[in-house]
Amino acid sequence: MKLASLRGPGRDGTLVVVRRDGAVFTPAPAEFPTMQAALDRWDESEPRLRDLASRLERGEIPGEPLDPQKLAPPLPRAYEWVDGSAYINHIILVRKARGAEPPETLRTDPLVYQGGSSVLLGPREDIVLHDARWGLDFEAEICVILGDVPLGTKKEDAHRHVRLLCLANDVTLRNLVPGELAKGFGFFQSKPATAFSPFAVTPDELGASFRDGRVHLKLVSTYNGALIGDPEAGPEMHFSFFDLVEHITKTRAFGAGTILGSGTVSNVDRARGISCLAERRMIETIDEGAPKTPFMKPGDTIAIEMRGEDGLDIFGRIEQKVVSP
Amino acid sequence: MKLASLRGPGRDGTLVVVRRDGAVFTPAPAEFPTMQAALDRWDESEPRLRDLASRLERGEIPGEPLDPQKLAPPLPRAYEWVDGSAYINHIILVRKARGAEPPETLRTDPLVYQGGSSVLLGPREDIVLHDARWGLDFEAEICVILGDVPLGTKKEDAHRHVRLLCLANDVTLRNLVPGELAKGFGFFQSKPATAFSPFAVTPDELGASFRDGRVHLKLVSTYNGALIGDPEAGPEMHFSFFDLVEHITKTRAFGAGTILGSGTVSNVDRARGISCLAERRMIETIDEGAPKTPFMKPGDTIAIEMRGEDGLDIFGRIEQKVVSP
Repeated sequence: MKLASLRGPGRDGTLVVVRRDGAVFTPAPAEFPTMQAALDRWDESEPRLRDLASRLERGEIPGEPLDPQKLAPPLPRAYEWVDGSAYINHIILVRKARGAEPPETLRTDPLVYQGGSSVLLGPREDIVLHDARWGLDFEAEICVILGDVPLGTKKEDAHRHVRLLCLANDVTLRNLVPGELAKGFGFFQSKPATAFSPFAVTPDELGASFRDGRVHLKLVSTYNGALIGDPEAGPEMHFSFFDLVEHITKTRAFGAGTILGSGTVSNVDRARGISCLAERRMIETIDEGAPKTPFMKPGDTIAIEMRGEDGLDIFGRIEQKVVSP
Repeated sequence: MKLASLRGPGRDGTLVVVRRDGAVFTPAPAEFPTMQAALDRWDESEPRLRDLASRLERGEIPGEPLDPQKLAPPLPRAYEWVDGSAYINHIILVRKARGAEPPETLRTDPLVYQGGSSVLLGPREDIVLHDARWGLDFEAEICVILGDVPLGTKKEDAHRHVRLLCLANDVTLRNLVPGELAKGFGFFQSKPATAFSPFAVTPDELGASFRDGRVHLKLVSTYNGALIGDPEAGPEMHFSFFDLVEHITKTRAFGAGTILGSGTVSNVDRARGISCLAERRMIETIDEGAPKTPFMKPGDTIAIEMRGEDGLDIFGRIEQKVVSP
């Protein structure tokens, strides 16, 4: 099942069920006007939404043409946006880029940070760059959207709490990171609003590609019209989404609608390219002594997407342009 | 105007208007069933709520007796919980306690961290201690609840976005902090669910005590029945709430209902006591070579409150007990 949120009329948008090909939608039942409402009562909403999805697929409901420009992120605002950093290759490269050592617990203790979630960006919203010196970068990621998750959830049980998956562009202001991390409290100003894919889909939409808490498909990033990365998202995700759920629930519970990110998808094999400019700049530094790829500037575009084994565009494309204020 | 949220029937509770003495309440208008709904449309909700508050105060509405046990936090879940650390004395003591240096930018660049906000605790909810080795501590704080705040808001304009004030117990697991901060991504597991005061009040309820973005009143903490701290919250708040708003909006906007905390209220004058055990333990270490006050254990109680110049209990009391799972 494929879900999306149209912008308006309220702050939480309007929940719609989308046909697998992404071309048409039908509104969700009135009892579940928003994605958050559906997640709050998933036991009731899921069968109703699945029924609509089946009828839409079979052509029993004609559906209305979907205009991606009118989409909000699946959750226009969320009660929690927690982002992991589960790809070891990314951690090593990015820390090297800022002259920092990887933490000693690199392979045993997941890195996560708490992101801001009251203002999130839709899949076609511009990224406004207020100061070019901030060093604007994209980060292509996969996310799960969780139901209620109790404190102390073990990784073996984590799959029960995964309601949906989507993609994210975890926009980062690289030049604000070192100063911020030096203060010891983690990212804040260096993480402006995050953008999300058009669609959030139930795990069964990925079939066997979603297994062991990992998505075994390529995450494709296109920068200024050229392919810049298509890493395999599965094998090198050192901590699976299930590991991350166990980690984050050690000392507290999470409410329905929590978004949990994988961190930037990254492969050791350089032929797979990159999912953020910081990695490319570090590779250039290693090979040539200095970075030559600049950070993003007004006019630049970034697209992020993922296709299933059957070639179908699963989440729709994130397509954003950098603009001046 | 004094507002509160009763638990249920939904996840966001039921918004009520509370008489100044805190004894009785009356339900908010049906158009604004929850605190979030009122904050989402504050221009419309505020006059309606103020009208009810006036009538309740004048006795034109009898009101129903308020049972603090039935209260949720003012926002049972929030889209954003951002906590500053604006009291320099606290930063210096707590960093000393974990053998860390204060950041070089201590007095020029505010410290803030992003907290979890999908599960928040009501004023009388127990603190469940799952592992005594985690080093449970309380932190008494003041918060503002914001309306929509645009990116790039200057401190001179920040007052326009302050809708309400409340108190918080920013529960901290001290022994998880050093390992977590060493990883570089800030607090996560070390910050379990935060508790909030019974009432959230509009700034005018504090009169001249709320000025320059600071609350010039004593924040009183009572630990296991004995006064443990009553610091003045105003003069030593190095960064005001208005400074903090300018800081957090540098690179992103915030949606209505964002909670912004002051950090642990702390005075240089030791006679004013402490608002968290970590400070007392550091003072013991300085004076006697080692901490002697243990962290919180099952059976311990913590109460946090603030009285106005007229002696009136402004926010109601946070009263929590530590319990085993």
